[in-house]
Amino acid sequence: MKALLLVAHGSRRAEANAEVHRLVGAVRRRATGRFALVKVAFLEFTEPTLAEGLEACVAQGAAEVVVVPYLLSAGSHAARDIPRAVAARQKAHPEVTIRIAPHVGLAAGMADLVLAQADPQPES
Amino acid sequence: MKALLLVAHGSRRAEANAEVHRLVGAVRRRATGRFALVKVAFLEFTEPTLAEGLEACVAQGAAEVVVVPYLLSAGSHAARDIPRAVAARQKAHPEVTIRIAPHVGLAAGMADLVLAQADPQPES
Repeated sequence: MKALLLVAHGSRRAEANAEVHRLVGAVRRRATGRFALVKVAFLEFTEPTLAEGLEACVAQGAAEVVVVPYLLSAGSHAARDIPRAVAARQKAHPEVTIRIAPHVGLAAGMADLVLAQADPQPES
Repeated sequence: MKALLLVAHGSRRAEANAEVHRLVGAVRRRATGRFALVKVAFLEFTEPTLAEGLEACVAQGAAEVVVVPYLLSAGSHAARDIPRAVAARQKAHPEVTIRIAPHVGLAAGMADLVLAQADPQPES
């Protein structure tokens, strides 16, 4: 069973975290047939932590977890914190495959998303 | 003439800022017929600033500038800093229409982008 774990920065502002939870709900609705489990974790300010999120995926039966850093740039979180937390949980659960996807700022579709945000096409 | 000004957070890490410049290049290549000018500005750590970016758009002849916050969440930059900087430049250039788009974290396409990042489809 495959899980997607979205890792967001986390914020002191409840509204910012609520936006992430809404996004995860949208991802979950679109994930049918691809990821049986879609969960969220945060790096700072709120919970669950990345370690907790990974444990939750394993506890719910994931054989494979894809960690998607919901980050726009290659800062220290992407370069160091996420790999470290993943390596620790990977060691604890060698039977589970944990993979870290490139952060979303590197997504091939980002340029089109920016353009659509600037200039929304009328819905037809 | 319409301009798109992508406003990124900015980083102490040169590689993170370089990623943003590459993204702006990709947006520019796709903007043909929609935005004659595509530029970048940063909120912290590097330049040009948002005020400088807006001035550059005006100096190059933009009659309309769409500011796209390249931010994932509704933090103080999106809520306060960007609107303040835009309001100041709008006052200085009443003949130019400056509009702030919702930050990219709110983009309708974000859930699909996250899924694609987690589970890339083979290119066909």
